[in-house]
Amino acid sequence: MEKLMFQNGVKKDQLLSAVNDDHGGVIVEFKEPMDPIVFQNMLKASLSKWRLQGKKGVWIKLPIECVNLVETAVEEGFWYHHAEPHYLMLVYWIPKTENTIPANASHRVGIGAIVLNDKRELLVVQENCGRLKGTAVWKIPTGVVEEGEDIFEGAIREVKEETGIDTEFLEVLAFRQTHKALFEKSDLFFICMMRPLSFDIQKQDLEIEAAQWMPIEEYEAQPFVQKHVLFKYIVDLCLTKAERGYPGFTPVPITSFFDAGASFLYLNNDGLNDENSAAHL
Amino acid sequence: MEKLMFQNGVKKDQLLSAVNDDHGGVIVEFKEPMDPIVFQNMLKASLSKWRLQGKKGVWIKLPIECVNLVETAVEEGFWYHHAEPHYLMLVYWIPKTENTIPANASHRVGIGAIVLNDKRELLVVQENCGRLKGTAVWKIPTGVVEEGEDIFEGAIREVKEETGIDTEFLEVLAFRQTHKALFEKSDLFFICMMRPLSFDIQKQDLEIEAAQWMPIEEYEAQPFVQKHVLFKYIVDLCLTKAERGYPGFTPVPITSFFDAGASFLYLNNDGLNDENSAAHL
Repeated sequence: MEKLMFQNGVKKDQLLSAVNDDHGGVIVEFKEPMDPIVFQNMLKASLSKWRLQGKKGVWIKLPIECVNLVETAVEEGFWYHHAEPHYLMLVYWIPKTENTIPANASHRVGIGAIVLNDKRELLVVQENCGRLKGTAVWKIPTGVVEEGEDIFEGAIREVKEETGIDTEFLEVLAFRQTHKALFEKSDLFFICMMRPLSFDIQKQDLEIEAAQWMPIEEYEAQPFVQKHVLFKYIVDLCLTKAERGYPGFTPVPITSFFDAGASFLYLNNDGLNDENSAAHL
Repeated sequence: MEKLMFQNGVKKDQLLSAVNDDHGGVIVEFKEPMDPIVFQNMLKASLSKWRLQGKKGVWIKLPIECVNLVETAVEEGFWYHHAEPHYLMLVYWIPKTENTIPANASHRVGIGAIVLNDKRELLVVQENCGRLKGTAVWKIPTGVVEEGEDIFEGAIREVKEETGIDTEFLEVLAFRQTHKALFEKSDLFFICMMRPLSFDIQKQDLEIEAAQWMPIEEYEAQPFVQKHVLFKYIVDLCLTKAERGYPGFTPVPITSFFDAGASFLYLNNDGLNDENSAAHL
């Protein structure tokens, strides 16, 4: 290809470096800032080439230090796909057909941890912040599962952070899906049964006003619990699990079906495997 | 406050319109484009006022038409929180303390639908796109739950879209969590048991190469299924459910614990409520 010079000295055929994705598209990842005019010329030339190559989706990942290139990308037809504190992902669809760009993450994932000791006492906290601040309501430890964290890991971490108690994860007893929890995003909240491995409470000061082991009847008797269906379900699930063996889901490691890494399948493994005992029921 | 004029005629004390959020912060939502210099002056003045008022988080929602303001917001200390195709949400934390800005959505939610008819035939499809394209592998219908959609609704919709079959949602039998499914985001995949309400297949052409009712033994015998743990689990779950009553989770509507709207709690409702039968076990 002949190298044409632009007035600003940028060669017309200088292209953005891109790697192919698994779906017939390309990904451009910026590491360092660039002049917007240089970027615009390279982007136009690159899009022409990718169009000729029959590429489909084009992803541009701009670290926040490259914020000066966002406007140019949008001028060239890109739109936002997702953003995290340190970067913005833009996307463009070359073919004339309807785009098959995958949807952005839509859910936050939270956990509530039921930690019951041998005296039928529940591990409960009062919060310093959030909507229950100042209400003196005792609740189970809750928290948000972090990026890349397994649900059971998040439950163990949150209990440890808020109360200092070490726990073993037993089962997911139930989960709740809500919508518009944060702006337009949805929320999945997993109610987890945990076994305490230590008993001396060391509460965290930033978010937790107080923490204690509380007889479950005392927890249940709180007017707030009586008024809120989810809180009542937590009592029922806890007691049913403790007394009658309610069937929850336990995490089983499986190799992921396309990827190399392991992931966890949450299911009733006893109900699946124990053919003999099931046949006797 | 005295009204000072800037060289460009913008009054120094013109402020951005903002509404309070529930956590001591403010939200600024742009509807129309604005000159970046005007924006910068208004933003500086507004931040000074909010600081005096003891405000905490400041959210700025910029529709993509206002992309020319992104660079200015970042210059003033804002960072990205999240983005959707039509807008970018930026955020700033005024206090000197560590920020308590909530995390962005971290998970995509998908479903796989096990639809078994009375002849022990499984509803299966071959896909036109994605990683199984061209492999002739028969798989259960799968799809991504849309923003604001309940899991059971998503499962019913996907089966209908891909195969034309109407179904009733029965239970979540298991779910899998994987990480780095799309860029840094995680994935929750719910395996759902459905009862068919119609039987004449009308396949969708865009994503589906073929669809049929297949004897479950034939599905299981596929080499691909034998090689992939998750596919084998799907067979086991389906057969256990059909033959022995594997305990899955059913959705129960509950009123949300802070909000007015209803949401769904997925749990083993029989295991929770049926005290008499449980006592007899």
